[in-house]
Amino acid sequence: MPVLTIPAVENLVIATLMRCRTSAANAASVARALVAAEADGLKGHGLSRVASYAAQAKIGKVDGFATPAIVYPRPAIVSINAAHGFAYPALDLAVAALPEVTRRQGMAAASIHRSHHCGAAGHSVERLAEQGFVALMFANTPGAIAPWGGSKALFGTNPIAFACPLFGRVPLVVDLSLSKVARGNILAAKQRGEKIPEGWALDAAGDPTTDPDTALTGTMLPLGDAKGTALALMVELLAAGLTGANFAAEASSFLDAEGPPPGTGQLIIAFDPIAIAGTKAIARFSAMAEAIEAQPGARLSGARRLAARCKAQAEGLNIPDVLITQFEAA
Amino acid sequence: MPVLTIPAVENLVIATLMRCRTSAANAASVARALVAAEADGLKGHGLSRVASYAAQAKIGKVDGFATPAIVYPRPAIVSINAAHGFAYPALDLAVAALPEVTRRQGMAAASIHRSHHCGAAGHSVERLAEQGFVALMFANTPGAIAPWGGSKALFGTNPIAFACPLFGRVPLVVDLSLSKVARGNILAAKQRGEKIPEGWALDAAGDPTTDPDTALTGTMLPLGDAKGTALALMVELLAAGLTGANFAAEASSFLDAEGPPPGTGQLIIAFDPIAIAGTKAIARFSAMAEAIEAQPGARLSGARRLAARCKAQAEGLNIPDVLITQFEAA
Repeated sequence: MPVLTIPAVENLVIATLMRCRTSAANAASVARALVAAEADGLKGHGLSRVASYAAQAKIGKVDGFATPAIVYPRPAIVSINAAHGFAYPALDLAVAALPEVTRRQGMAAASIHRSHHCGAAGHSVERLAEQGFVALMFANTPGAIAPWGGSKALFGTNPIAFACPLFGRVPLVVDLSLSKVARGNILAAKQRGEKIPEGWALDAAGDPTTDPDTALTGTMLPLGDAKGTALALMVELLAAGLTGANFAAEASSFLDAEGPPPGTGQLIIAFDPIAIAGTKAIARFSAMAEAIEAQPGARLSGARRLAARCKAQAEGLNIPDVLITQFEAA
Repeated sequence: MPVLTIPAVENLVIATLMRCRTSAANAASVARALVAAEADGLKGHGLSRVASYAAQAKIGKVDGFATPAIVYPRPAIVSINAAHGFAYPALDLAVAALPEVTRRQGMAAASIHRSHHCGAAGHSVERLAEQGFVALMFANTPGAIAPWGGSKALFGTNPIAFACPLFGRVPLVVDLSLSKVARGNILAAKQRGEKIPEGWALDAAGDPTTDPDTALTGTMLPLGDAKGTALALMVELLAAGLTGANFAAEASSFLDAEGPPPGTGQLIIAFDPIAIAGTKAIARFSAMAEAIEAQPGARLSGARRLAARCKAQAEGLNIPDVLITQFEAA
């Protein structure tokens, strides 16, 4: 299991994708995002995705040569057509375009459609917060969660991410998906031959199940029961309804090379906190972070990711041989 | 128990508040909001609040004669100082100001500070959706939820509300608070002399409790455990940090006439869906609503409230004698 520096891992991912019908610029954007997620310990959005991304690019389910197109339909709106390419170049374009518009208007939104897997949603908002903005992101994903009381998935696991600047340290980041657990946990239980806890998933008829195989043919339960389902609906309408993207039930999988492009959407909202609340805004965010950290047993959102990131930057990333094999086979 | 029409109940509330140091215009705004919540079956945000509102106005904890002030610090930002009055006149002002700004800019936000209890958060966003906008609202409330692993409340129950227009029918509304259950459920268990289920609340040391008295001295648990706490933090930073309002831990109670004004905040974001996604946007929202309703056992968010509203509009509202007594004693 080799240990590689972050730039070395990025180079490995870039080389893999460029062999699979992806432009150098797009491969670099994807590599930066996946390696950043891996470094944060978010393996579900990290290097485990390279092989399936490469397969999708090879067959054209994702267009590795796509160039996202930007238009400004109104003064506070940035509309980006990801052109069925990877999401990351479109997200990069949003993060590059939003600061100027947000400074001028006080707030702005980037509406992204014809998109793909957004990866670690916290990263896009964090990059805006690093520049002094408060940012909020909603993304939809292929069908995973049924309406409360129903049985067919109409909503994705639909991440919500938020970031705000803090004085003299990296931004505070909230990043969560609305399923109670990630589907990967069910796959892991299946591989271990174990049952899953009740409350994770429903079978295809909408009834609770503890069998991982049955769960994989059914739907995921949201966090917080009916309220979480309502949040998943809200994110679906913001990230797909408002952006003109495909809804979860219309979107093909992010994981395999079957079917048409998923065509999902992302909505990023940025605010200029100093324009809205004055120069004290950042101090207020910092005061909240400090109040949380002052409580014994409590921890600021994102603390675990930051610790993993620091370690990866200092010591490099362990790359399991199975990943190297996957990259070489792509 | 008299049955009164909605306008008759509003008149009763207006008369009560006007006797308690509140202007006619502010009393009308408060009455409209509380009676609308009561009609929707949201009794916790309805007529049960009149007596405590009146007591707060009488003693000056809320300024019943306040006039909310509006400024436009940037083209897409409406900033409203609720001037320690009731929240509803400030919310009315936001709902009146946002359409023009949103049409011009594509999106806009109303940032409200020095505010008070926002009541049923769904109503403000619903009024924007009735005019064709997609709207999102975040509000903070006095301290109720501790950071995950901690014991002292730093976040309120912090409602999130969302609404979007549908073809030929009232808007789709999502409206939820982030505590697992409302604190009123703990009070009700206490009155019945019953234990509360584990998972509702923590004691003052941050440990689980099933004793209602102990729970009332501790903190409320959020929906969805650590993820729900992260959402409560996010809402706190948006509704109070970004607006310049008091954080939950700084805010006095909405329920009694003790202490300084609560000074909480609300953030409303409105989008012009046609400017962003084109004329098909409303059809897409409607398609999602219909897909939910087509599933046996599933129900659209807000359906129960609408049924209660229709009944109240047709048959009037039952006003328990105890409320009439409270109004007369105010």
